Amino acid sequence: MPQTSFPAPPADKAVLETGTALAPRFDASGLVTAVVTDATDSQLLMVAHMNAEALALTIDTGVAHYWSRSRGSLWKKGETSGNVQRVTEIRVDCDQDAIWLKVEVAGHDATCHTGRRTCFYRRVVTGAQGQAQLAMDAEAPRFDPAQVYRATE
Amino acid sequence: MPQTSFPAPPADKAVLETGTALAPRFDASGLVTAVVTDATDSQLLMVAHMNAEALALTIDTGVAHYWSRSRGSLWKKGETSGNVQRVTEIRVDCDQDAIWLKVEVAGHDATCHTGRRTCFYRRVVTGAQGQAQLAMDAEAPRFDPAQVYRATE
Repeated sequence: MPQTSFPAPPADKAVLETGTALAPRFDASGLVTAVVTDATDSQLLMVAHMNAEALALTIDTGVAHYWSRSRGSLWKKGETSGNVQRVTEIRVDCDQDAIWLKVEVAGHDATCHTGRRTCFYRRVVTGAQGQAQLAMDAEAPRFDPAQVYRATE
Repeated sequence: MPQTSFPAPPADKAVLETGTALAPRFDASGLVTAVVTDATDSQLLMVAHMNAEALALTIDTGVAHYWSRSRGSLWKKGETSGNVQRVTEIRVDCDQDAIWLKVEVAGHDATCHTGRRTCFYRRVVTGAQGQAQLAMDAEAPRFDPAQVYRATE
């Protein structure tokens, strides 16, 4: 049971946007969006979701927790891979439906489940006839998912 | 009508994650999450949502378009305020449900509707008795929303 709890979001937009209470606007599924960047060089690492418990545990422990929509369960990032995220700063956006975590990544310093440092390893390039194509970064994965996740598959 | 269109996401996870086709996994509401950072200094500016039309128009024009969930309409960012976002790079994440835009902001170089450069102007600080508090950045707003949005309110 986390120590931190959250009040209901204020109905007054000015209070929501300029107040000093963290009162996240969880959506119909009870989630807010979490954007995760590297505390050292600001690299965008991943986008995930948090329910109230995940956000509260992140605040309480200083270690990033999320809600896994695919598994339908609380998710302490890096529990299997060792790529735990230590949180150095948490921010919230104007209307309090998005959270920004700045983190230091342990283990392989890799955040993506594919073994890469960031989930955003592909860039959109313009293709022929209105088809957008993707170009992959040259950087190799930092771990082998087949090895690291073998025990949990 | 945008020129760019998107194929259905591939059922094969390996193709989705390492293929060269941009095939976004729009959610039940037809949206993907868009994370927007400044092309120059990597500052996180905002989090928004895109439907297929907004993403296609962004690719076609090089100017950021979103879907406004509150207004239920296509949204060319900066149309009222002048803070148009010129896109320098578009990336997609591993499972293609999040888009990353790197942008150059025109006008006041301010992205938030409150007049601030970024929507993430408040930091979470630990309060007493399990209440998370917010501390606001000292930086003043760059425009006066009451003036800029007056015509559209």
